[in-house]
Amino acid sequence: MSRKINFTIVLFALLHSCVSSDKKSESEEDQVSKNTNVESALPSWNDGVTRERIIKFVEQSIDSINPSFVAVEDRIAVFDNDGTLWAEQPYYFQLAYAIDKVKKLKPDHPEWDQDPVLSAAAQGDIKGILREGEKGLIKVIMTTHAGMTEAEFESSVTAWADTAKHPVTGKLYVENIYKPMVELLDYLRLNNYKTYIVSGGGVSFMRAALKEVYGIPAEQIIGSTIKREFVDGKIIRLPEIEFIDDQEGKPINIERIIGKIPIIAFGNSDGDLAMLQYTESGSGNRLMAYIHHTDSLREYAYDRDSHIGKFDKGLDEAISKDWLIVDMESDWKTIYPYD
Amino acid sequence: MSRKINFTIVLFALLHSCVSSDKKSESEEDQVSKNTNVESALPSWNDGVTRERIIKFVEQSIDSINPSFVAVEDRIAVFDNDGTLWAEQPYYFQLAYAIDKVKKLKPDHPEWDQDPVLSAAAQGDIKGILREGEKGLIKVIMTTHAGMTEAEFESSVTAWADTAKHPVTGKLYVENIYKPMVELLDYLRLNNYKTYIVSGGGVSFMRAALKEVYGIPAEQIIGSTIKREFVDGKIIRLPEIEFIDDQEGKPINIERIIGKIPIIAFGNSDGDLAMLQYTESGSGNRLMAYIHHTDSLREYAYDRDSHIGKFDKGLDEAISKDWLIVDMESDWKTIYPYD
Repeated sequence: MSRKINFTIVLFALLHSCVSSDKKSESEEDQVSKNTNVESALPSWNDGVTRERIIKFVEQSIDSINPSFVAVEDRIAVFDNDGTLWAEQPYYFQLAYAIDKVKKLKPDHPEWDQDPVLSAAAQGDIKGILREGEKGLIKVIMTTHAGMTEAEFESSVTAWADTAKHPVTGKLYVENIYKPMVELLDYLRLNNYKTYIVSGGGVSFMRAALKEVYGIPAEQIIGSTIKREFVDGKIIRLPEIEFIDDQEGKPINIERIIGKIPIIAFGNSDGDLAMLQYTESGSGNRLMAYIHHTDSLREYAYDRDSHIGKFDKGLDEAISKDWLIVDMESDWKTIYPYD
Repeated sequence: MSRKINFTIVLFALLHSCVSSDKKSESEEDQVSKNTNVESALPSWNDGVTRERIIKFVEQSIDSINPSFVAVEDRIAVFDNDGTLWAEQPYYFQLAYAIDKVKKLKPDHPEWDQDPVLSAAAQGDIKGILREGEKGLIKVIMTTHAGMTEAEFESSVTAWADTAKHPVTGKLYVENIYKPMVELLDYLRLNNYKTYIVSGGGVSFMRAALKEVYGIPAEQIIGSTIKREFVDGKIIRLPEIEFIDDQEGKPINIERIIGKIPIIAFGNSDGDLAMLQYTESGSGNRLMAYIHHTDSLREYAYDRDSHIGKFDKGLDEAISKDWLIVDMESDWKTIYPYD
């Protein structure tokens, strides 16, 4: 458990700081639909080896006479969320939600003035929250994420996602998604891949915030969980961590919930390394890929020394094993849908 | 935890005791496919109110101008497995697997002669296993279900399912599935329902044993879990219970893994009551249904006093709330596919 909690603090620690493709699919024998319009696939990706490698992998996997053919029922593609499908700087969006919620609840809780953590949170003072270490962070999360029904939590997150804006871009948080990745999700689904999110973020937070953002349904979103109980027909959220879906937790959750080794896995940090290793452990061809944040002008540039999205061991392993490394600056024509 | 363990012992305690429909679907607007061949649906169900009620519910749910219309993405149908989709008498099939495996491993473990539980198991003596209470049962399960990789466990279960035969019917265990329920699963999928198993059985056991039996893919099978760890690219099964997917565990797991309240739920015992209550808690029309084992000639007749599949509180609640109660004797023309 201490490893998990330590991760939690690293997870949120600090603070140095729907687009749809227009391609058509056609039915083939064996329920295989093959995308014939390869030329126009992934339009927000620059021409080059990265885009070519992705398309070649997918095209081979759906070609029933290719040795790398993958049956439709095994076409599982998993994606980390923070830093892979949407931005994670200057802090995880879920932490922004928690702080906004403390601010909102504060008028009804004058007693929080006596609580250094919650009063710091009410002022948006993240360093103040963390002055008490992991305990502070957990208190903010549990104060805002537990003690209510799932339905109540969902409403709260939905209302936030519809209005809250990113402190740097000024756009809704849910608009700060990566257009090239949304195209990739669409492209994979057109080729009968089932696309999953497998993220350290809370599963209920993601389901509510990301509804209709990526075209991924609730049952294909996997994340960290708190404990629940079932009382009088309702699911109640309890203030206790159940499972952290990060590092080794990712393959364990994939096995538990999906029950198949993925064919394709995309991540962006060391927290995704185990998921990529697990993907690689399957037989036949697999695509392990990392998004490398290299674009300090259009997005952010960070890797080995970052507190958020630290990408160090994963980068070494990706290089040594020739996994795909997406260079955000050179491989992506566009970052956000609103660009 | 003690409730869970108590359940476990009740669960296994003792011992008094792919058919595919030929209907066609046609595409409608809004991705709704409506089954036009209602007359021929569910051929193994006798004509009568039960069959009519199921078909009426489904037809209304897919009719976009009906007030009970359900959007395709919300069409979730959940099914208990033991006693609902396949038989559970004279003992749970998973316990049969565990005992068969102890027998198989016994020659390499002479030290088990000194262990009253494992030596009882090696002789197929279930009462002997239970002489030490829940500890005995857990020992048999953990000896046979843990300490190996997921891939090894899957191979073991698959080999067993391909050969092991039911002690009463003499058919493979996986042939003792209920033909009317297989037709119902097909009928629902034709109408764009996503069909899930939500069972007290172990998730990995079910995925391996039930592969291709019901047409339900691994990622739509939810069950009890033991802990796992991820080491050197492999998932290792640890000898510790993680979560019992029974009673209140069922709605909690449905929320955690599917994230939607089901539209349709079928069970057969008190262990399914919370799942049906949760289903009922959703807005709009829902179908809560119980299979009542009333057929002592063709299958088994048991309910309020049974140690396996005890159906007492659930029966009372189903009657008082007018949930659907399927009378196996009068509602089912055929029980097993091989009949």
